[in-house]
Amino acid sequence: MSPKITTELLKQLRQVMKNPKYVQEPVQAYIVPSGDAHQSEYIAPCDCRRAFISGFDGSAGTAIVTEQHAAMWTDGRYFLQAAHQMDNNWTLMKMGLKDTPTQEDWLVSVLPEGSKVGVDPFIIPADQWKRMSKVLRSAGHDLVPVKENLIDTIWTDCPQRPCKPLITLGLSYTGVSWRDKIVALRSKMAERKVMWFVVTALDEVAWLFNLRGSDVEYNPVFFAYAVIGMNTIRLFIDGDRVMDPPVREHLQLDSTLEPEFKIQVMPYGSILSELQAVGAGLSPKEKVWLSDKASYALTEAIPKAYRYLTPYTPICIAKAVKNAAETEGMRRAHIKDAVALCELFNWLEKEVPKGTVTEIIAADKAEEFRSQQKDFVELSFATISSTGPNGAIIHYKPVPETNRTLSVNEIYLLDSGAQYKDGTTDVTRTMHFGTPSAYEKECFTYVLKGHIAVSAAIFPNGTKGHLLDSFARSALWDCGLDYLHGTGHGVGSFLNVHEGPCGISYKTFADEPLEAGMIVSDEPGYYEDGSFGIRIENVVLVIPAETKYNFKNRGSLTFEPLTLVPIQTKMIDVNLLTEKECNWVNEYHQKCREVVGAELERQGRHEALRWLLRETEPLARVQ
Amino acid sequence: MSPKITTELLKQLRQVMKNPKYVQEPVQAYIVPSGDAHQSEYIAPCDCRRAFISGFDGSAGTAIVTEQHAAMWTDGRYFLQAAHQMDNNWTLMKMGLKDTPTQEDWLVSVLPEGSKVGVDPFIIPADQWKRMSKVLRSAGHDLVPVKENLIDTIWTDCPQRPCKPLITLGLSYTGVSWRDKIVALRSKMAERKVMWFVVTALDEVAWLFNLRGSDVEYNPVFFAYAVIGMNTIRLFIDGDRVMDPPVREHLQLDSTLEPEFKIQVMPYGSILSELQAVGAGLSPKEKVWLSDKASYALTEAIPKAYRYLTPYTPICIAKAVKNAAETEGMRRAHIKDAVALCELFNWLEKEVPKGTVTEIIAADKAEEFRSQQKDFVELSFATISSTGPNGAIIHYKPVPETNRTLSVNEIYLLDSGAQYKDGTTDVTRTMHFGTPSAYEKECFTYVLKGHIAVSAAIFPNGTKGHLLDSFARSALWDCGLDYLHGTGHGVGSFLNVHEGPCGISYKTFADEPLEAGMIVSDEPGYYEDGSFGIRIENVVLVIPAETKYNFKNRGSLTFEPLTLVPIQTKMIDVNLLTEKECNWVNEYHQKCREVVGAELERQGRHEALRWLLRETEPLARVQ
Repeated sequence: MSPKITTELLKQLRQVMKNPKYVQEPVQAYIVPSGDAHQSEYIAPCDCRRAFISGFDGSAGTAIVTEQHAAMWTDGRYFLQAAHQMDNNWTLMKMGLKDTPTQEDWLVSVLPEGSKVGVDPFIIPADQWKRMSKVLRSAGHDLVPVKENLIDTIWTDCPQRPCKPLITLGLSYTGVSWRDKIVALRSKMAERKVMWFVVTALDEVAWLFNLRGSDVEYNPVFFAYAVIGMNTIRLFIDGDRVMDPPVREHLQLDSTLEPEFKIQVMPYGSILSELQAVGAGLSPKEKVWLSDKASYALTEAIPKAYRYLTPYTPICIAKAVKNAAETEGMRRAHIKDAVALCELFNWLEKEVPKGTVTEIIAADKAEEFRSQQKDFVELSFATISSTGPNGAIIHYKPVPETNRTLSVNEIYLLDSGAQYKDGTTDVTRTMHFGTPSAYEKECFTYVLKGHIAVSAAIFPNGTKGHLLDSFARSALWDCGLDYLHGTGHGVGSFLNVHEGPCGISYKTFADEPLEAGMIVSDEPGYYEDGSFGIRIENVVLVIPAETKYNFKNRGSLTFEPLTLVPIQTKMIDVNLLTEKECNWVNEYHQKCREVVGAELERQGRHEALRWLLRETEPLARVQ
Repeated sequence: MSPKITTELLKQLRQVMKNPKYVQEPVQAYIVPSGDAHQSEYIAPCDCRRAFISGFDGSAGTAIVTEQHAAMWTDGRYFLQAAHQMDNNWTLMKMGLKDTPTQEDWLVSVLPEGSKVGVDPFIIPADQWKRMSKVLRSAGHDLVPVKENLIDTIWTDCPQRPCKPLITLGLSYTGVSWRDKIVALRSKMAERKVMWFVVTALDEVAWLFNLRGSDVEYNPVFFAYAVIGMNTIRLFIDGDRVMDPPVREHLQLDSTLEPEFKIQVMPYGSILSELQAVGAGLSPKEKVWLSDKASYALTEAIPKAYRYLTPYTPICIAKAVKNAAETEGMRRAHIKDAVALCELFNWLEKEVPKGTVTEIIAADKAEEFRSQQKDFVELSFATISSTGPNGAIIHYKPVPETNRTLSVNEIYLLDSGAQYKDGTTDVTRTMHFGTPSAYEKECFTYVLKGHIAVSAAIFPNGTKGHLLDSFARSALWDCGLDYLHGTGHGVGSFLNVHEGPCGISYKTFADEPLEAGMIVSDEPGYYEDGSFGIRIENVVLVIPAETKYNFKNRGSLTFEPLTLVPIQTKMIDVNLLTEKECNWVNEYHQKCREVVGAELERQGRHEALRWLLRETEPLARVQ
């Protein structure tokens, strides 16, 4: 992986930063955030502006370019990758380390007095605008909206915005009709006394209308906004795709509906003017509900006194709690996914010793096995297929320049998942196809202890996920080891593999309490730079727990693993496990045998079944 | 404890809320916060306005009175106490429970359109003003400052503000002179480019000048403010007490000092006008640093553009990291405190079976033994001496109406501490003087497991205390038990027993990372309403830990208990302990024997020494 040479691009950007065609007054700094106009984590190629200007294409990062400097903020997952992909024009700002300045503080330290800092108001979330603007203003600078995106002005071969066909999802997948979702949403709106709700996140639009798309790779979403009133529904979406008969029927566009369920379809690009019209027509006490992460541009369309901003929208919260149809779908998807991985690992075990399997071949093979499963749609993120030192690059994606061959001498880490029509998967397994060293086994076992500590944790109703994060680290901490990423994220139901409002992280973002029906990942790891990476990840469902005293009827929760793929026992130092941990592994493997074994049998995959049975032999603890 | 009858008082308050003598326009609601003008947790009698109007005298709570309602917000420690102390005019708002509205949301739900909500601007912290004001404004109401405190207008027999003599502390206690503290503070100010720093918290004034007082019970502080410029020092303090020769000498008021170390002494009441003068005289870029918890009145004295607000001041952070002199002082104080408690528990063991010892007698006896120790000043908080059901009232203080007699049939919980000139203590032990039930032992042992999990935790440098909170709960959670309070708070060095900026709590306040030298409490508990309370509390010092892999030189931390009082082994169900936990208890008791045993010997307290030796016999685990 050689870095992108950005000298010329930065020169051009610095020119347009002073060009009166684009800016009223020259801007001394220009911010290029990661996101798109919907604050998506995964974005379409036309929105990869930060990658275009810097070369760094990880999923999280913010670039800031000034006359003298170009700096990139990213988190621990991407320190190595960003350092590899960016040339010497760029300074890497390692977020989460004590001495790394915030973007605002850095700007204050490098800018000349009275500077203007530009940003695209459609790309920056309103809450971030507010924070930055405040710090900059108090230091005598100004954050200014630059209407035309300055990267777009120098990006001559920028791809078009995608506009792919839509998929409709019936009740057997969603459990609730879009009509009932609108009814529930309006009742939340009535509770908060708001008259309008603006849906800006792509997965929220998709979930609300029980539609899916493929405008963004890995995320089954489509470019759209929606504005829901107490009596109106407006869907802002481009192309003829809503005209497809199945979609027309699904949305009941041709039915004689009560007016409050009649969907008005409008062009995607008209959202700002329509919202401004809504904003202009409000009478006192008519509030408009927006996410505080909605773009600054849309937020500003509503006069300040009429805004009702929350960190999580009612859709985000409703979407996180999966109903019975969704939970059953997720279970089915995970069983199919496990079948594919049993096939893969069985195949790798035979092929790796021949020295012909590269990281890319292994990733492709994983996709091939997954694609054989029913209702497979696409992958849910770029497969992380990494061996040896590449495993320490937390969000590594193999490319020809970095592609290593799997061997019996190195640890192999596979973090992968898929979108099935009935659910989304995300699983990481760390394998050794030869004989792991004592140190590798030791580290793996601490990670496993952390994984179990979260998965088997019992906690009272109302507990927030971040309170469980240290459970995942305790065994590593005892030996002076740690990992620089969170422990878990929410997972969508045939939707984004990363979703809010819950998670398990040492970062105390304002997560919502865990509730039965929520689905999160449990994925502690350990990374030794230049040597290997270890991560053990299951997707787990929050379920009620049974306890001796039941928190005086407050009730308690625990997790049920949905992922059912063997954890390589060869990597475990059994003597480091407690009896309880040992039993957890054995019970987990017993469930893999029963559930996935039955499906392998049903699909006639006998060799993979034999592999599964061998890999799930009970651990025996030496007393 | 019978509730205070408040009907007449509320009637009077509602009258002055409409009286043009005090308010420009009638206020429809009046907020009575807990604090004083320094946002102190413990307050002088003249500042106990919330207790005066409601009867509830716990350390935390906010009252709001409207035309129709009177409501009190307090946290889990005080649910029972508040319910007992308040009459039917009051509604208890249980903070931390899911369905309890915030004060702002409640106000919005009960107030008529366009209401005014009044509050004393000297009592409400600026950050709270901002938050409330925003929510109220967005709902069409107004938060308004009411200059004259409305409670004071109806409080006919309000006591005078205290003005007691000062104590000077030499280098052997403080480790650093006030001059050097000023130098360090100015260097922090220069780093942040601020010209002025306003010291508003009483313990910060005391710490900065190496002075102590006794204006507030339990907290060795005195009413004062300070304003530190780059070249000036202004101390706002009343009375002749600064004129005492030792104080004059300590502050070098009569020496020929460099002008930047010359202290100008000014009247306490002149802070607002002086600060307004500072605010009026600022040139561009001259910032004034204040805590964001400073009062709204003082914060408003500085024009907004010139304010530099942080949640923790540089003094708060410097004060939290104890130097060698302070740490040694804390060690000495805790040994003396342990001597007093060994005497007490030995005495209780003999006296309780006679049926003559009440909660109040036990508390008084504890104070008597403590007062025999060198450099004893006063208690560090009101002793919680509680037996049986009283133990479940988390911050219980025995009064004649509730005073129970200790017996061999009930659990006894003693949470107590003292101020010694060399340090502050805070320790809780839960004892049974007869035979505890299996259930009591079970609960006690889970609490002990939680206590050990925190105390023995190893974690990387830079970890925030709130990440350790769940360690204290895990064993309880596993059985469906929990406690409704945080696990630990910072402890001052001959200063407030509760201090920031660190702590161990599920509430994710913006705590600063733990650092070697910080001192916190470790105090999980379990409370069975109507039956008993259990809490095990040590004060612990953050120290560097040694680990196998040392976090790649990031370094690691753990805790060293400063409290050295036996944990009653009779209450422990040894079979519920792991081997590691069992060893922890035995090593802890071994240290109590050695360190406290030597001091008991030195003080010739042979009977208490025999008690200590018996109580610290090693636990034997049945294999």
